[in-house]
Amino acid sequence: MTAVLAQITAKRYMLCMTVTAALIIIGNEILSGRTQDKNLAVIAVRLNGAGVRLTEVRVIPDVEDTIIATVTTCRAAFDYVFTTGGIGPTHDDITSQCVAAAFGVPLIRHLEAVAALTEHYKERGDLNEARLKMADVPEGATLVPNPVSAAPGYQIGNVFVMAGVPRIMEAMLSHILPQLKGDKPMQSVNLTTNIPEGTLADGLTEIQNRYKDVEIGSYPKFANGELSTTLVFSSVDDARNTAALAEAKALIAQLGGSIF
Amino acid sequence: MTAVLAQITAKRYMLCMTVTAALIIIGNEILSGRTQDKNLAVIAVRLNGAGVRLTEVRVIPDVEDTIIATVTTCRAAFDYVFTTGGIGPTHDDITSQCVAAAFGVPLIRHLEAVAALTEHYKERGDLNEARLKMADVPEGATLVPNPVSAAPGYQIGNVFVMAGVPRIMEAMLSHILPQLKGDKPMQSVNLTTNIPEGTLADGLTEIQNRYKDVEIGSYPKFANGELSTTLVFSSVDDARNTAALAEAKALIAQLGGSIF
Repeated sequence: MTAVLAQITAKRYMLCMTVTAALIIIGNEILSGRTQDKNLAVIAVRLNGAGVRLTEVRVIPDVEDTIIATVTTCRAAFDYVFTTGGIGPTHDDITSQCVAAAFGVPLIRHLEAVAALTEHYKERGDLNEARLKMADVPEGATLVPNPVSAAPGYQIGNVFVMAGVPRIMEAMLSHILPQLKGDKPMQSVNLTTNIPEGTLADGLTEIQNRYKDVEIGSYPKFANGELSTTLVFSSVDDARNTAALAEAKALIAQLGGSIF
Repeated sequence: MTAVLAQITAKRYMLCMTVTAALIIIGNEILSGRTQDKNLAVIAVRLNGAGVRLTEVRVIPDVEDTIIATVTTCRAAFDYVFTTGGIGPTHDDITSQCVAAAFGVPLIRHLEAVAALTEHYKERGDLNEARLKMADVPEGATLVPNPVSAAPGYQIGNVFVMAGVPRIMEAMLSHILPQLKGDKPMQSVNLTTNIPEGTLADGLTEIQNRYKDVEIGSYPKFANGELSTTLVFSSVDDARNTAALAEAKALIAQLGGSIF
């Protein structure tokens, strides 16, 4: 009875944290392996700081049907959706028309965005129609400013559309974060030991069973011919993480291992 | 009439290439931003070499329902599916039970895998029940050997289950690649210019319209305060890439730009 209650409490505790987000990375260059994505980890860490948990990432190509279907699925399944990529001036930048289609609204030229682009390109005098395409957003969208190169991102419903260039993405994310309604951030502590994870496994399962509100991850690593294991303890309550970590330290000591 | 025919030919040409694959990266450590995935780009490049195109990537947490649903969706939607992560000995390694559930088959202890693990742990003498869990695979699976640490990957239907540790994943992939039925690999050529992509956009759209069988990607970059654009031309036919690239060079020359 007590165990069942504890489980239910633990489950509710975890659920109460879970304000979820999906990230959709749009771009053939990532899928081809030519470019290594640098945005995922930054977005994950900064969302967590705002109490929003990155729950799924999809990397998809610059293909209209795929983008529309993925945005449609994700905006129904997650509290927030973030996209990166495909909002530039060239023919392969098709994110905005797809997001508009996913919301069933037309793409409109946003006057504030036109003003921002006009100001940005004033000196060079080369604001052409291709660049003005970057002022086209789904009807009803709210702009997210781009302090680097003017072409804005935007929010429509629970979807935030951002640039793929990391520096611009980060500026847009900084603008977005204060608007999100998150819960408590996940906290985490970790340790690395020389005990292989197969030897730790049974004891670790027992600790996990006693700390159902703490996510315990075990990650093996080979380096310089040596095997090591990193254990990560994550929950919204740092005291619980620390308590679980202390039990893992005791387990490692009992197995005659050392902690790096 | 000729234009329509050319379009149809181009479309069929592209379709004939498309042996598709999805990659499912399973692991809280990637979604939390703690660990940067290193497998995506390697898998993309090596699959392409075998004529298989990585068409979608999903990063999902160590959550049973999510893994089962994602494997089920992807194995129906793509020619091949690859998973990385979650096949170790600890409580958070739940990939195999989920893949078995997605295929509606039981998890069985594979005798060849037991033999490989027994041999590997013979000297250290620490083959325990947790490690033997790594010999459990969905019924009907064919093993993929692990020359690094013995615990195998496997194939079931069109799904290949691999380790997350890059060195082990790469060894498993090397074993899998000769078995895949691919088509022609995508070839690509690229150039980088000082002309911003907004200035190139109109001319580039015209080139793309003339080369519908070539995927033309445009990627802006800021470095040392300078803006540059990399153009990537990809198709199964290198002669077509080179021809499209030559037109882009002419466009850049006409705009007074230089190529790095």
